[in-house]
Amino acid sequence: MNGHAVETVEHLLQNGVSATKVHELEIHDLDASKLTVTLTKSPGKVPELDSKEVWSMKSNTDHMVRVTWTDDVGWHAPTIEPYGQLTMSPIASCLHYATQCFEGMKVYRGFDGKLRLFRPDKNCNRLVMSSARVALPTFDPKELEKLLKAFMKVDGPKWLPKSRPGTFLYIRPAIIGNGEQIGVTAPSEVLMFIVAVGWPDLSSGTPPGAAPKPPGLKLLASKSDVRAWPGGFGYAKVGANYGPAFVSHMEGRKMGYDQILWLLGSEYQVTEAGASNFFVVWKTKKGKLQLVTAPLDAKVILEGVTRGSVLELARERLVSGSKYLTSEVKDLEVVERNFTMLEIEEAAKEGRLVESFLSGTAYFITPVSAINFRDQEIDIPMGDGTGGYYAATLKKWLKDIMYGNVQHEWGVIIDEE
Amino acid sequence: MNGHAVETVEHLLQNGVSATKVHELEIHDLDASKLTVTLTKSPGKVPELDSKEVWSMKSNTDHMVRVTWTDDVGWHAPTIEPYGQLTMSPIASCLHYATQCFEGMKVYRGFDGKLRLFRPDKNCNRLVMSSARVALPTFDPKELEKLLKAFMKVDGPKWLPKSRPGTFLYIRPAIIGNGEQIGVTAPSEVLMFIVAVGWPDLSSGTPPGAAPKPPGLKLLASKSDVRAWPGGFGYAKVGANYGPAFVSHMEGRKMGYDQILWLLGSEYQVTEAGASNFFVVWKTKKGKLQLVTAPLDAKVILEGVTRGSVLELARERLVSGSKYLTSEVKDLEVVERNFTMLEIEEAAKEGRLVESFLSGTAYFITPVSAINFRDQEIDIPMGDGTGGYYAATLKKWLKDIMYGNVQHEWGVIIDEE
Repeated sequence: MNGHAVETVEHLLQNGVSATKVHELEIHDLDASKLTVTLTKSPGKVPELDSKEVWSMKSNTDHMVRVTWTDDVGWHAPTIEPYGQLTMSPIASCLHYATQCFEGMKVYRGFDGKLRLFRPDKNCNRLVMSSARVALPTFDPKELEKLLKAFMKVDGPKWLPKSRPGTFLYIRPAIIGNGEQIGVTAPSEVLMFIVAVGWPDLSSGTPPGAAPKPPGLKLLASKSDVRAWPGGFGYAKVGANYGPAFVSHMEGRKMGYDQILWLLGSEYQVTEAGASNFFVVWKTKKGKLQLVTAPLDAKVILEGVTRGSVLELARERLVSGSKYLTSEVKDLEVVERNFTMLEIEEAAKEGRLVESFLSGTAYFITPVSAINFRDQEIDIPMGDGTGGYYAATLKKWLKDIMYGNVQHEWGVIIDEE
Repeated sequence: MNGHAVETVEHLLQNGVSATKVHELEIHDLDASKLTVTLTKSPGKVPELDSKEVWSMKSNTDHMVRVTWTDDVGWHAPTIEPYGQLTMSPIASCLHYATQCFEGMKVYRGFDGKLRLFRPDKNCNRLVMSSARVALPTFDPKELEKLLKAFMKVDGPKWLPKSRPGTFLYIRPAIIGNGEQIGVTAPSEVLMFIVAVGWPDLSSGTPPGAAPKPPGLKLLASKSDVRAWPGGFGYAKVGANYGPAFVSHMEGRKMGYDQILWLLGSEYQVTEAGASNFFVVWKTKKGKLQLVTAPLDAKVILEGVTRGSVLELARERLVSGSKYLTSEVKDLEVVERNFTMLEIEEAAKEGRLVESFLSGTAYFITPVSAINFRDQEIDIPMGDGTGGYYAATLKKWLKDIMYGNVQHEWGVIIDEE
């Protein structure tokens, strides 16, 4: 698994280059064992919790990971080095043709003092898929996971100190085609890099000095703009899904909405909200309680790690006889299917809507309080006023895993020694 | 027209900043009159015509244009400076969220010794539209046209010498969001730049040393992948339309095809080919000769400058009684409508297919010799063997304008004094 490099070998062999010569070129897969570390000589200052600096979402840690890929060598030796600027040609592929993909992850300082990633294998696997979708090279995802751990071993202890249990950093792995290439073809040179930045609690906080905001997000259902399409790339975490969505986001914000709820087709099929997955809890006309979200099969929505975790936990714990049930949180049916705004509208009218929430790494689990659909605002029940009971319960379960209140295989501990 | 800058002013006013203070900030539109020029101290060598260097499509000229935009100031003063690398933050918006757009243009050295752009107003207007589509700032397109002319006044005389009439350079204006921004919102800092590179004759040439290729492009009709969709951004020249298409391109090339013919929907509607517009000439069942291409109204295809010029020339010159008609090139009906591969297949079976060609800046006018649709290859008539008569005629008309064989308002002369 080293992407185009393989094709290059075939190409060389077809063109008469001897197998011995090709072997000498040594097309390499990503290999974390070759990592070298160069520590910064000008270490930065860790920002205050929930400060303006953290809310800027651009306060970096001291270091970053860099790995070059070239079509003749494959993946070069990875480095951890001081955080710094990238230099590239004005005709770098990634600046013109969106040959770029990324991941969003967090690293957590547990209440037990441990540093954890949450299901990093999911992110690493998805980055391989996203990379291939935009003609960038593939790699062994396990090696990326090792690099993530090595990076956090370096920057974690300082930037997520043990004195701050229950906090996190946002980690951004990315792959960009930085080869010079105006011709429309796969880049011949690629850079993988990983940075970490401070990140606020978008699921419930507000920036310092900002007026307090009532709980719950208000969504504006998209009108003409469509985020993704069957046969497109909505399922991949590629830059091409984001920039073109910003105009709708900005229009929504001007109208007083927090996120766009992306619809598809003449039936107003519900897909994603903002850059998060979307869930609704309702009662069917027959009175059955359901947790519903869009399915993955049409490849229109992102296979969110939080989305998958919500579904798995709900299927395991929100079942009849479970010890987790309460008077507010009852057992329900978990359903992945295409559903529409017309169904949500009808459920609201008939008093069958229970709650709604977004899931994702950036927004974690955030309740939805209203949806504007065709210029009518649909109110969504908000449980105790701060959000629905299912959102609160699922959020708590996930936090318990992330912050080590419970030991769970999804919480992957980073060795800091 | 200076994009978000306007919103920033409103924002400042709403937040109690006095109008005088806002005026002091001076939100600027793009202004070519503020241009400063710094000439290179290490001028490069002009490559040989049709050399390997030119076929690399990355041999730059000596200089480039750079213009910064920030959300507090608007467009800063433009510069022409030595061609060089870009430096940006690892969390620059354009690397993660495809906040990027570009144009493709050529500058021509005429047989009359003059340097010309071809309809640059069309490219400048389109770049404004593309920029807005991915939440980047707008600008007065006339100012961009002035910058293009100023740039070519500096680099044109050396890189397209008068001793090489009938040659051209490829010009690449681009706008990228280079502000640091992991949050999903419009970039707060943006860079416009313009570079020029050597470009081979893709419409008929082959790289040095390559086996000669039979004339005409072979197209592979896309199967599952869809390039663009209604409500998307297929009409804008944004990076997001390119990278996700590379995988199909590469698969096509492996199968021996030059370009992908992008289809849409269950009826196999024909949209674009590769990164070019697609034309077919056929006879209707009633025997009427037609030049057909996909329409712009669904905003799925790019409004190509060459496409528009082909349609305008055909509507003006391919009419009954025109002096341009010959025994091979007859008057025809020009039709912009949705049409499908099923129609092309039927026309081929019934012997009604006359010819087909691509149009675009990169490939100019290039005949199509075959289309693979659902694993069957449809042969397209190729006129005298080198391509259809309409393609050849339209190409000649356009070249006459580009290279000054005829004086025409579409050929915009650059003052080299």
